[in-house]
Amino acid sequence: MNSDLLYDSIRPIRWADDGLYLLDQRRLPAEEVELQLTTSADVAIAIKDMVVRGAPAIGITAAYGAVLALQSALQESPDDWQSSFAAQLSTLEAARPTAINLAWALARIRQSVALDNSADLVASALTCALNIHEQDINDNHLMGESGADLFSRWQTHQSARAVLTHCNAGALATGGYGTALGVVRSLYARDLIEQVYADETRPWLQGARLTAWELEQEGIPSCLLADSAAAALMQSGAIGAVIVGSDRIAANGDVVNKIGTYAVALAARYHHIPFMVVAPTSTVDMSVSSGEAIPIEQRQSEELLYFGEQRITPANAHAWNPVFDVTPASLVSAIVTERGVVESPDKQSMQAMMNNGG
Amino acid sequence: MNSDLLYDSIRPIRWADDGLYLLDQRRLPAEEVELQLTTSADVAIAIKDMVVRGAPAIGITAAYGAVLALQSALQESPDDWQSSFAAQLSTLEAARPTAINLAWALARIRQSVALDNSADLVASALTCALNIHEQDINDNHLMGESGADLFSRWQTHQSARAVLTHCNAGALATGGYGTALGVVRSLYARDLIEQVYADETRPWLQGARLTAWELEQEGIPSCLLADSAAAALMQSGAIGAVIVGSDRIAANGDVVNKIGTYAVALAARYHHIPFMVVAPTSTVDMSVSSGEAIPIEQRQSEELLYFGEQRITPANAHAWNPVFDVTPASLVSAIVTERGVVESPDKQSMQAMMNNGG
Repeated sequence: MNSDLLYDSIRPIRWADDGLYLLDQRRLPAEEVELQLTTSADVAIAIKDMVVRGAPAIGITAAYGAVLALQSALQESPDDWQSSFAAQLSTLEAARPTAINLAWALARIRQSVALDNSADLVASALTCALNIHEQDINDNHLMGESGADLFSRWQTHQSARAVLTHCNAGALATGGYGTALGVVRSLYARDLIEQVYADETRPWLQGARLTAWELEQEGIPSCLLADSAAAALMQSGAIGAVIVGSDRIAANGDVVNKIGTYAVALAARYHHIPFMVVAPTSTVDMSVSSGEAIPIEQRQSEELLYFGEQRITPANAHAWNPVFDVTPASLVSAIVTERGVVESPDKQSMQAMMNNGG
Repeated sequence: MNSDLLYDSIRPIRWADDGLYLLDQRRLPAEEVELQLTTSADVAIAIKDMVVRGAPAIGITAAYGAVLALQSALQESPDDWQSSFAAQLSTLEAARPTAINLAWALARIRQSVALDNSADLVASALTCALNIHEQDINDNHLMGESGADLFSRWQTHQSARAVLTHCNAGALATGGYGTALGVVRSLYARDLIEQVYADETRPWLQGARLTAWELEQEGIPSCLLADSAAAALMQSGAIGAVIVGSDRIAANGDVVNKIGTYAVALAARYHHIPFMVVAPTSTVDMSVSSGEAIPIEQRQSEELLYFGEQRITPANAHAWNPVFDVTPASLVSAIVTERGVVESPDKQSMQAMMNNGG
C-alpha cells in the first residue's frame, strides 16, 4: 500500500478571515479560479448556480453561508438579528431542493446558535461550521477504508481491476477526499484497482470535467465514457463494482443521486455487479420513508438545448431535465456511511446503522 | 387518422445527373446544406465522416457510390475496368464496419453488374441503386404500419400516450420516412401517441440534433432528454414502448444499434415496457450467429473529449468510445421488418421471417 496516495490535495471550500472561497467548478477543468463570497445571499446564488455542487460540499458551504448570515444580521440589525438570520437561512435552504445535507448543515448551525451562551455568537457558529467541514473530511477517509474493505471482500468474486463511477462524488463534492472517490482513492492506494471508468454525466458533464480532472490531479488513471455506454462496459466484463455518492437517502435505503444513477444500477444488477453507495449520514433523511417522497430538482432545459453559448437543437426544441433520480434500495448492494456499512439496505438495517454512535 | 401525416418531406439522399447529393447531417440543425459528390472516394469519405449516417441510408449512399465507381472505372480504364471497380467497392465497403446494409447494397450492385448483358452497364447499375433507394422508402412505409399495428395490440396494456426513441432512425437515417420514426409517424397519424421522447444520444447527439429537427419538420411533438434519464422516464410511467432502429441484426435476433440502446433495453425490461426494433431485412445478417460476432466500431475519443472545437476535459484525459452496442434478443419484444414481425426473436423465428418472400 502506498500511503502517499491517501493524501488528497483538493479542497474546494476554504474559509478565511475575509470570507468564504469556493473553487469555481463551472470553470473546471479549463481554469482553476476561486470565488470570494462575503454574504449569505451570494453563497445561496453560488449553490444555485453550481459554483459548488455535491451534497456534502453544499452542506459545508451552507454552514459557512450561515456564519456570514449571522455576522451581517448581528451587525445590521443588532436588536432584531434573529429575524434577519432566519430569513437568510431560508434563502440558503431554498438554493437547491434535493441534497438534504443543505438543510442538515443549517439545522446544525441554527441549533448551535440557539444553544449558545457565549459572548461571541459568530465565533461559536464558525467553530460549528469548521467542525462540519473537518468532520466531513474525516468521515470520508473512514468511509474510504470501509468501502475498500467491502470491495476486497466482493472482489473474491470479481477479477476485474476497475470500477465505474457516475457524476463526481469526489473531493470536489465534499470537504475533501470524497465519498465514492474516497473509496476509489483507498482502492487505488491498496492496489485493488488499476483504473476508474467515469461516466461523462450529462448534461453538466461532472464526470468529463470534474472527475477526470480530480483523478488526474491525484495520479489515478481514469477513462471517460458516454453515460449510455456504461451497460456495454459492464457487458464487457471490465468492471468489478459501481461506486457512487448520493444527494439524499430515504429511511428505506432508496438512494437519490445524479440523473443516470438509476440506469447504471439497473445495468449493474443485470450483470451481477455490486452497486455501492458511499455517503455520510448527513445525507440520510430518516424523515422520508421512501425515495418517491424526495423532491427531484428540475433544472432549465437549456442545459440540454445548448452547449455553452451554442445552440445544438432546433429553435423550438424542448427538453425534460430532472437532475436526480431514485434508485430503489432493492438495487443497492451496500450503503457505506461513517457509522457503518449497510448491505442490502432496508428500513430496519438503515435504522440500526443510524443508531450506531449517532 | 390524418393521412397528411403519413407524408414525409425529408430526403437525405438525392441522385442527379451531375452526381450524388447528400444533406450534410453534421451541420444539422443549424444549416441545411447539400454536398455534391462525384467520385466513389468522396462518397466513402462522406460515409466515414458521417455526412450521412444510419444503416439504410449508408447502404443507399454506397449503392450510388458504386455507380460513380463504375462510371469512372469504365471511363478511365476501359480495358481493365473490373479491377478499378472492385478496388473502389472495397474502399466504400471499408468506410464503416458495423452497418451490414453497406455490404448488402454493394453486393446487390456487384451482382447486378456481373449479370448484366446490356450495352450500358452504368444505366443498369443506376437502375439497381434507384431500386434500392425506392424499395427502402416503400419498406419503411410498410414497417411503419406493421409497427403501429403491433403497438396498438400492446397498447391494450399501456395507457401511456408517448414512446421513447434513441439515436435517429428516421427519414435522415434511411431513404425517407424512417424505420423507428416511420412507426412513430404512423402512430402519430393514427392518434395513438401524443409525443415522442428522444434521447439526446451522446456523443454525436443524433437525437438532439437530428431526431428533434426531423420531428419538428413533420409537426410531431417531441421532448429531448439526457440518455441517462431514460430509466427515470420509464419509472415515471410516461412511455408505452421503446422504438429503435438497428445497424445489424444477428441470426439469433441479437440487435446491434447505437451505443446506449442496450441500456435502454435493460431499463425497458425492468419496467415491463415493450422494446421494438424496426429494420429492413437488409439490416439482418444471417451469416453471424450472435451479436458478439458483429464488429463494433470504435470512433475517436475526441468525440467525447471535445465539444466542437472546445476541449471539455483535462488535457490528458482519454475516453472509451464504442459507437454501437449489442442488445441480446432476450430483451427484444419484437423485430419489425418488411417481411414480417418477429416477436420474442430467436434463430428459428428469424429464419422463418427471412424465408417469407425472400
